[in-house]
Amino acid sequence: MKLDFSVAVHSLFYLEANSPRKIASRELAASLDLNAVVIRNILSVLHKRGYIEGTVGKNGGYQLKKALADINVGELYDVTIPPTLSYARFITGRSEGINKTDQISSNMSETLTDLFTLADDQYRAFYHRFTLADLKQDLYHHGYFKKLVKINDK
Amino acid sequence: MKLDFSVAVHSLFYLEANSPRKIASRELAASLDLNAVVIRNILSVLHKRGYIEGTVGKNGGYQLKKALADINVGELYDVTIPPTLSYARFITGRSEGINKTDQISSNMSETLTDLFTLADDQYRAFYHRFTLADLKQDLYHHGYFKKLVKINDK
Repeated sequence: MKLDFSVAVHSLFYLEANSPRKIASRELAASLDLNAVVIRNILSVLHKRGYIEGTVGKNGGYQLKKALADINVGELYDVTIPPTLSYARFITGRSEGINKTDQISSNMSETLTDLFTLADDQYRAFYHRFTLADLKQDLYHHGYFKKLVKINDK
Repeated sequence: MKLDFSVAVHSLFYLEANSPRKIASRELAASLDLNAVVIRNILSVLHKRGYIEGTVGKNGGYQLKKALADINVGELYDVTIPPTLSYARFITGRSEGINKTDQISSNMSETLTDLFTLADDQYRAFYHRFTLADLKQDLYHHGYFKKLVKINDK
């Protein structure tokens, strides 16, 4: 789900802000204004990937396992937003040209799939340039992130 | 519509391959295996932007107005795929924090909107690096485009 990345970032910030208190998924759900099931699914992924530690049940709750500076935004994006394998739906042309001489229709799909895949690589590479510590700066001093990108791209 | 970019690229290649013959939207619709109305809407945009010239009606049809090498892929992408203003839907947190001390929820939306907007800029910048002449090379010699990107990024 496209919201998963935002939920993951939000949850990690919340755990960090309340550290070292253990946070239950219920409390996170209230803060994010989302259904607890959605939160639990994403916490489960974050737990499996070693971003957080904790237990479910009574007296349970989660804590951040890594420093924000050690959490790469791109890795988090890759974990929560799977590669768009649905490009195919946005591509014209048949895989088998009915008219043999219509090479455009036959090859369009392969060419555009390569174009979209390479563009997506670049898109993800952008996220990989930052850590959650960068985003946290922006959370408390909005505008920081835009400036950071400008400086980096100079 | 997400398909619009693919339809535009496909149409321009088709006009070029059949140049200088005038191509009716009907014929394009058959080649792209799409409804003629979809095709006409996109041809209308391409016409307005000066990519193609032509007339509708009897003996009407379209011709390419620019060389493929003068058609930037990124410009075509920008014309056919509007900036994703729907980021907001994928962002957690309220614009007004109910709990005043919950700065994460209050600021999450602004911070992630900046992150997504800057990432989209980079995504679009990638497309701007190429012309339709590059894509045409790949259409007839698949693999060309992947190699081109590798060489450029070295």
